[in-house]
Amino acid sequence: MAKPFKRILLTGAAGGLGKVLRDRIKPWADVIRLSDLADLGATREGEEIVQCDLADKAGVLALMEGVDAVLHFGGISVEAPFDAILQANIVGTANLYEAVHKMGVRRVAFASSNHAIGYYKTTDMIDADAPVRPDTMYGVSKCFGESLSRYYYDRFGIETVCIRIGSSFLEPTSARMLVTYLSYDDLLEALRCSLMTARVGHTILFGVSDNPAKWWDNRKAGHLGFVAKDSSSRFADKFPPGASYPAQDDIGATFQGGPFLLSGPQYRQEQT
Amino acid sequence: MAKPFKRILLTGAAGGLGKVLRDRIKPWADVIRLSDLADLGATREGEEIVQCDLADKAGVLALMEGVDAVLHFGGISVEAPFDAILQANIVGTANLYEAVHKMGVRRVAFASSNHAIGYYKTTDMIDADAPVRPDTMYGVSKCFGESLSRYYYDRFGIETVCIRIGSSFLEPTSARMLVTYLSYDDLLEALRCSLMTARVGHTILFGVSDNPAKWWDNRKAGHLGFVAKDSSSRFADKFPPGASYPAQDDIGATFQGGPFLLSGPQYRQEQT
Amino acid sequence: MAKPFKRILLTGAAGGLGKVLRDRIKPWADVIRLSDLADLGATREGEEIVQCDLADKAGVLALMEGVDAVLHFGGISVEAPFDAILQANIVGTANLYEAVHKMGVRRVAFASSNHAIGYYKTTDMIDADAPVRPDTMYGVSKCFGESLSRYYYDRFGIETVCIRIGSSFLEPTSARMLVTYLSYDDLLEALRCSLMTARVGHTILFGVSDNPAKWWDNRKAGHLGFVAKDSSSRFADKFPPGASYPAQDDIGATFQGGPFLLSGPQYRQEQT
Amino acid sequence: MAKPFKRILLTGAAGGLGKVLRDRIKPWADVIRLSDLADLGATREGEEIVQCDLADKAGVLALMEGVDAVLHFGGISVEAPFDAILQANIVGTANLYEAVHKMGVRRVAFASSNHAIGYYKTTDMIDADAPVRPDTMYGVSKCFGESLSRYYYDRFGIETVCIRIGSSFLEPTSARMLVTYLSYDDLLEALRCSLMTARVGHTILFGVSDNPAKWWDNRKAGHLGFVAKDSSSRFADKFPPGASYPAQDDIGATFQGGPFLLSGPQYRQEQT
Amino acid sequence: MAKPFKRILLTGAAGGLGKVLRDRIKPWADVIRLSDLADLGATREGEEIVQCDLADKAGVLALMEGVDAVLHFGGISVEAPFDAILQANIVGTANLYEAVHKMGVRRVAFASSNHAIGYYKTTDMIDADAPVRPDTMYGVSKCFGESLSRYYYDRFGIETVCIRIGSSFLEPTSARMLVTYLSYDDLLEALRCSLMTARVGHTILFGVSDNPAKWWDNRKAGHLGFVAKDSSSRFADKFPPGASYPAQDDIGATFQGGPFLLSGPQYRQEQT
Amino acid sequence: MAKPFKRILLTGAAGGLGKVLRDRIKPWADVIRLSDLADLGATREGEEIVQCDLADKAGVLALMEGVDAVLHFGGISVEAPFDAILQANIVGTANLYEAVHKMGVRRVAFASSNHAIGYYKTTDMIDADAPVRPDTMYGVSKCFGESLSRYYYDRFGIETVCIRIGSSFLEPTSARMLVTYLSYDDLLEALRCSLMTARVGHTILFGVSDNPAKWWDNRKAGHLGFVAKDSSSRFADKFPPGASYPAQDDIGATFQGGPFLLSGPQYRQEQT
Repeated sequence: MAKPFKRILLTGAAGGLGKVLRDRIKPWADVIRLSDLADLGATREGEEIVQCDLADKAGVLALMEGVDAVLHFGGISVEAPFDAILQANIVGTANLYEAVHKMGVRRVAFASSNHAIGYYKTTDMIDADAPVRPDTMYGVSKCFGESLSRYYYDRFGIETVCIRIGSSFLEPTSARMLVTYLSYDDLLEALRCSLMTARVGHTILFGVSDNPAKWWDNRKAGHLGFVAKDSSSRFADKFPPGASYPAQDDIGATFQGGPFLLSGPQYRQEQT
Repeated sequence: MAKPFKRILLTGAAGGLGKVLRDRIKPWADVIRLSDLADLGATREGEEIVQCDLADKAGVLALMEGVDAVLHFGGISVEAPFDAILQANIVGTANLYEAVHKMGVRRVAFASSNHAIGYYKTTDMIDADAPVRPDTMYGVSKCFGESLSRYYYDRFGIETVCIRIGSSFLEPTSARMLVTYLSYDDLLEALRCSLMTARVGHTILFGVSDNPAKWWDNRKAGHLGFVAKDSSSRFADKFPPGASYPAQDDIGATFQGGPFLLSGPQYRQEQT
Repeated sequence: MAKPFKRILLTGAAGGLGKVLRDRIKPWADVIRLSDLADLGATREGEEIVQCDLADKAGVLALMEGVDAVLHFGGISVEAPFDAILQANIVGTANLYEAVHKMGVRRVAFASSNHAIGYYKTTDMIDADAPVRPDTMYGVSKCFGESLSRYYYDRFGIETVCIRIGSSFLEPTSARMLVTYLSYDDLLEALRCSLMTARVGHTILFGVSDNPAKWWDNRKAGHLGFVAKDSSSRFADKFPPGASYPAQDDIGATFQGGPFLLSGPQYRQEQT
Repeated sequence: MAKPFKRILLTGAAGGLGKVLRDRIKPWADVIRLSDLADLGATREGEEIVQCDLADKAGVLALMEGVDAVLHFGGISVEAPFDAILQANIVGTANLYEAVHKMGVRRVAFASSNHAIGYYKTTDMIDADAPVRPDTMYGVSKCFGESLSRYYYDRFGIETVCIRIGSSFLEPTSARMLVTYLSYDDLLEALRCSLMTARVGHTILFGVSDNPAKWWDNRKAGHLGFVAKDSSSRFADKFPPGASYPAQDDIGATFQGGPFLLSGPQYRQEQT
Repeated sequence: MAKPFKRILLTGAAGGLGKVLRDRIKPWADVIRLSDLADLGATREGEEIVQCDLADKAGVLALMEGVDAVLHFGGISVEAPFDAILQANIVGTANLYEAVHKMGVRRVAFASSNHAIGYYKTTDMIDADAPVRPDTMYGVSKCFGESLSRYYYDRFGIETVCIRIGSSFLEPTSARMLVTYLSYDDLLEALRCSLMTARVGHTILFGVSDNPAKWWDNRKAGHLGFVAKDSSSRFADKFPPGASYPAQDDIGATFQGGPFLLSGPQYRQEQT
Repeated sequence: MAKPFKRILLTGAAGGLGKVLRDRIKPWADVIRLSDLADLGATREGEEIVQCDLADKAGVLALMEGVDAVLHFGGISVEAPFDAILQANIVGTANLYEAVHKMGVRRVAFASSNHAIGYYKTTDMIDADAPVRPDTMYGVSKCFGESLSRYYYDRFGIETVCIRIGSSFLEPTSARMLVTYLSYDDLLEALRCSLMTARVGHTILFGVSDNPAKWWDNRKAGHLGFVAKDSSSRFADKFPPGASYPAQDDIGATFQGGPFLLSGPQYRQEQT
């Protein structure tokens, strides 16, 4: 059977999730073009490898040649000094969309992050229309990507699904991740729905598995048909409730972003 | 065990869904009164057949004699010239409710349609309180039935469930119907809940199975206890995503009503 | 200075509000075409008079020739037997929009009514998105006009402002009208905004003056720039609070539609 | 494995649900302190029994000594003369929270009731933010407990989950309870989530199993991770739909509180 | 001209606002019955004075004899030990409504308080449906009065306007009161509207003048026709912005309740 | 009388609005520090002039020394190539907030723009919580400033009012500006409220005068006490409604951003 796409571009292919996706998305396109700053190893069947700095506008334009759809996982995925985030996540994403537009690509799945809304409380339930509350400069850069892609949709009709990925790891590594866990299979399904749905407009999707505790209401992305199959419940025993509650001023426990919102060396150093 | 009702009236019994329901609703009443303009064949056990034009006020009044509850599937179920829709769907439904009121019937399940809200986008999620956006004159006539039945509830206490039926066929015949599919079993269950729930007031229920992709939020009809058992997911392979996205100006892909909203010979002819 | 329009059609020109508007809208168009079933007297300067039954499709089509914009005040404006309402308000309005579409008219101000939402309580505050709750068959016919015009906007781009007129009389004649009063000047201003605003889409505007007590929130029509100048407050002394409250089961006092919702000879006669 | 808590206080331990919980909550704490006005029988292993009138402020203070978390099921659980409700539910709950605060307890699960919102209609869907509509003086006292605990959270950081318990019995005993049924296992799970979730703030949780018909939307308590496992559907056959609908003025069928809202001897006697 | 009422009862007539109202409400009734625990001085024309403890059920019943409508300003209006608030505000208000019901009084204006929602932030905008967030035990008692009166409305049809009074003094005495100020004239108008509107159901009205800064949205009380005439703007110069902002942890500046939420001797003493 | 602030920094002081504000804000601070890339002329009394490129991090840090509050009007205020916008508006604003944080400044009024939400329709009414829909890369950069300042508030407590300025010119120069007009006096008042209100948190304020037609609902900024005094109504005669409506596909008339959303040489050139 013919594959749905001729060529899909995966940016950030050498990153943690890039590696997870590299083989799994093969059934979706004749060719997967993999891109990263870091080394991607040998080219395997059905792959093209293009090393590229997303901050290099001409390079990104070349990268987009012949591409049907983009999985944009490139950039920095942790808190970092703003200059680094600026180049990788802001300039990089701006370059990507300009290339998408110039090359006539019509669909992007953008790896946004729960850190775009990490300052909501752990007792809040929000949906896709809740105003952003980034919890780091990294989170601010994800908000930039979301508003930029909104602009490209309204102005040029380029469709994007912004997936605010929770915690996509092999398994949860903290009690917080029992809420935010996104299994690799569910991530893959979210991406499949993002690319394969005939019309997505500009959609915000919270990327989480069907975990028992929920902070995010995905109804407004119902048209995607994304139905998570996994749940963090099978890992619940790893994080039994302890003998005591977190302190009232424990901001890592108070906000959805968790301890991550306290990361970022630049400010803590500067404040001393 | 006694059946819940003595006599249920099914209008439109010779139509597509009427035929599906004819035998399946037998357990609900001692007598099913079947009505249609078209021929209904031989009377079977537990049935009464009354040929009747819904536009005939006296006929409809007679039709309602001794009826406990009504399943109103009569009228035209596709786009048609307004004169036809006027008689079958507008005058017909007005006659029906006048008869319901005069004869003291207390409950109606009204076959409304997703075409009452077909001009919402395929990326929208709406619920029962979203303002109507009919996509055809047929859809406008369904809006008429919905507001008429609201009036009869507020004024006379006659309770109606308006079921905005998605696509109720043996199986989906297009990719769009993966979203709008309502299996026959789920249709039956929706009707059962509509008739058997002690108090329904005036309820808008979206008639869809538990399909992966969703445009309609049924929470406001939660009191009905309708839980769809089927899903279009088993038909997904029949409509694999193609090699290309619909054009930006493809209005059949853009709106929930789908290609149906381009039907209707009267205007297209007239516009030339 | 050139007038904004060449020709405006005013239907229902012999009715109560039609007479009020006849002279006042003259500054808006070179020609005012007046239409009614009833006699309109002699033609004055800047007028054309066309006697026409809105239920006559061909007549309505001819009526629309050369028209830039329509003020649709025609039809029955009180509760009446359904057959009469059907012809005047349902068939009539359907004919009108079909003619509007065929003749390429782009803007309609439609005299809808508070009776489209008359079954909200007198302690409710609603806005344009509240589901309709008609209080009479007359009200149901206004809901028909609203959903029909929504269809013509979504399908053909014909823009309509549906003005849900409260009580537009020389002055309030009951305590209820202190809430629903729409002065003639404010009616005129609402119509002016409806016709003169560059883009109105399909707007629901509650037609009320700036009365102290309010049931209707007009924010969603803010783009019209309608600012009521009059208030019922100067008539408050005419309806001093009496010595007693209405009974708990006084439905005329309970619902926004007021005693009107008990009108309608057909049902009361039929019920006996 | 160490138990999560050292000492949990269960008030109302001799009541219907208190008895259900007494043994089942043992795994959660080294010691369960049981309290009631009524006799609690012999002390079993892992228990402490303290007879106490919640209206006795000093007694309640002593009761709280060494307690980690509270399950507050004490007080009157039916409609009763106000003087009785005042002492048991209002003074009692005020004493309890004052003691909680003085003793530094940080978490309470409060047995509130659906009768805090019993005057919503049986066709309404509400969530945790719907304004209260108590259906009895008992319901009013539950509203008091909810606003009191909100105060203690905002002012002192004491976290409470108010569980608006539906109908928690061995099985449903009326058709209404098919909607409001909360199995004992699901009650236990709701309490477990209320105590074990790291941060709950002040949460309103509707205590119902996963019944087909729903009046209450629990999304705003999603952070608790409460997932009901049982359903009233297996009891549906016990309450087949009868041959007739409830009368339009049957207020027991009209409001969510059901026949309970007509209880309360004090007023009916006084009205005669 | 006949006065609208025969007899209005004003409880708390010796209190700060009671004194303000005593003479001003004379035009509304043939007789004003004044009640308080404290001395009310000599009886003036058109007055009846009844000394009464609201915690005395029989006394309150007698107080209600022959009364048409009640302005309930009695009770404690500052933070106080719970026992005092319990008697004056909880038992007192329960007695009042029981008497209202038994004596067939149909309308109450209840002096609730902004302290029922004082834990909203000074940057929040709330309306009548926002869940309560009392800031003191006094505030909790006002929430009790609001839910109690809701019950009496739903159950017995007794109508109440709960006026959440901001700061009703001769003039603002702090910068906060520039937001919460309610002039005496506007208080009077709010009460007039509460008593004179034909149908009020159960209404929450925020009692504030038309001050420039706003925390409270009164749209849902629009049916009352309350239009504030005064504004705190003429006092703005008394509270010029100082040279510095309040500290981030200044909870008196953070919450709408202001410094009042730190009042209450019982807890602060007990905490030491 | 002492001025409220010691030193206010005005960035972009040589720009159109900077020049308007330069003298008018003098009463608010002992010293106004003016900054721009462009020449600011001679220093006047009560002023300090510091030429500074906002993209120069060290320069911005120095600029913030001794500052109490910031009016951030610097950057590019029209559509421009992304590289220019990146430096001026993104890097510049990031530098500004980093300096604000390091220097302990506690309040910023940020000149955001209606172009952050310019892709809403001219028939929409939105409020501060509506998701952003930027209409240009310039608009995207304003969204960046809004989410960045949200982060600085949530993380560090730095308060910002983001004023989405409509069209602040001496007078409207198009029919669209009758809706978006912000008089200079009203701009000044908006800034005064932004700086002088004791607590603003992170507020989105739409900067418009009290014009008749409205697209933006400012209720959620009610705590600021901003009350516009001017109106575009006195300029209405300059833009009389023409003889024809804009075409259905006239996107400048369709979206709130107006013709501006078609500006931006980079894309149009590139698309050819």
